[in-house]
Amino acid sequence: MISVVILGAGNVATHLFKAFNNSNNVSVIQWFNRSIESINPYKNTVDITNDLNALKDADIYILAVSDDVIGSLSSKLPFDNKLVVHTSGSVSVYDIDKKHKRGVLYPLQTFSKTTEMDFTNVPICIETIDKKSFPILKELAKSTGGPFKRINSDQRRVLHLAAVFVNNFTNQLYRIGHEITESEGAEFDMLKPLILETAKKIQDISPYMAQTGPAKRNDKKTIKKHLKDLESQHHKDIYQLLTNSIQKTHGRKKL
Amino acid sequence: MISVVILGAGNVATHLFKAFNNSNNVSVIQWFNRSIESINPYKNTVDITNDLNALKDADIYILAVSDDVIGSLSSKLPFDNKLVVHTSGSVSVYDIDKKHKRGVLYPLQTFSKTTEMDFTNVPICIETIDKKSFPILKELAKSTGGPFKRINSDQRRVLHLAAVFVNNFTNQLYRIGHEITESEGAEFDMLKPLILETAKKIQDISPYMAQTGPAKRNDKKTIKKHLKDLESQHHKDIYQLLTNSIQKTHGRKKL
Repeated sequence: MISVVILGAGNVATHLFKAFNNSNNVSVIQWFNRSIESINPYKNTVDITNDLNALKDADIYILAVSDDVIGSLSSKLPFDNKLVVHTSGSVSVYDIDKKHKRGVLYPLQTFSKTTEMDFTNVPICIETIDKKSFPILKELAKSTGGPFKRINSDQRRVLHLAAVFVNNFTNQLYRIGHEITESEGAEFDMLKPLILETAKKIQDISPYMAQTGPAKRNDKKTIKKHLKDLESQHHKDIYQLLTNSIQKTHGRKKL
Repeated sequence: MISVVILGAGNVATHLFKAFNNSNNVSVIQWFNRSIESINPYKNTVDITNDLNALKDADIYILAVSDDVIGSLSSKLPFDNKLVVHTSGSVSVYDIDKKHKRGVLYPLQTFSKTTEMDFTNVPICIETIDKKSFPILKELAKSTGGPFKRINSDQRRVLHLAAVFVNNFTNQLYRIGHEITESEGAEFDMLKPLILETAKKIQDISPYMAQTGPAKRNDKKTIKKHLKDLESQHHKDIYQLLTNSIQKTHGRKKL
């Protein structure tokens, strides 16, 4: 049984708490947050605290806090030589105070507090500085039921960066689709099956092979019409840049 | 029983042929293509032809051909006063020769020849100029088993334009995600669950509500680090523009 203390009360902390709590070989023995109110609803399920000096002895301490405070919080922990991991995609493992055994457990998924998370669909990227700590972190990752992979800090950094493109930026394109359709009283809902199919398609074939549309075909007439139809200069800029990008990838001349 | 002649042999034509062929109340009585080779594999299933003068009498003629030839092909049809519809998202219903009863049957989905299409997930946008032709086109759309909706030409135009953003441009962001991860020997496959979850999320909540990440949080430190990490100027440009776009939507100042 792996004993765990979780620090932080954001989306990642909450979802990890639930996942570990449902697992048979992990015991979350304590949950810390600076403000106790956020974790108060869990007080009957787990020991909660807002006092770093009251932290219990555990196998792994998980810092599921915002990137900026990982370093300082790790320094404030009143012990050393224990396995302390953070959950960030973009922070180096070396940001954790070197008095600890250091590692990373980065769940590569989008979390929202309201939606339940099925961890069988969440790849966990793990990394430790010393080899001896790796097996226990691997066991912890495994306990969520999803895929896990040893990823070094450089790889994690690019995965996190790529995640911004395929998650945040993609979502913004959905938002623009919403703006464009509603401007003519059409329904964004009509686009939802297309959005889902676009994401499903690249589960099996590469995005390169999956590409279609006027930019790929170099259909200048449609591209010109679309640019004319777009009312916002901002939408025009995005249309132009991403059309160029597709043509760059598929060997067409720039607009 | 609605009798149909399909003209064209692209992805949309092929998928529509299969869908109608599986339906109980539609009979595809003929398939026309300029080059007979493309439809030759279907010669035992349906009457095929490459001769416009050999076209049979049918209730509906479906022009599933490229945008540029819809007008000219409709003029060349050796009959008049029959219901002739095209399947394009961006071409006006008035591009069809006015000697016909005119309409549009636009399936709002991404089609590839290799993947089978489940039409229960394909919204069909329908439009006719004369009211009398509407019921039969509605019956035809219904026969695919998916949702259908009366959509005017302005609404269809913006839906098609929005589809470029949520399908072609989104797919290009997946492609960039691929480029970024492979550059460090990380695996694009690790991002696939995130891609799927991002698309699933907005089936229930709006893209506005679904947004997360450094741009939305105005996390300047991470944004700066990401821009520095991106090796290609082209990727930097896209990062910057879409970060601005998110901040515009969510009321943050521009970078």
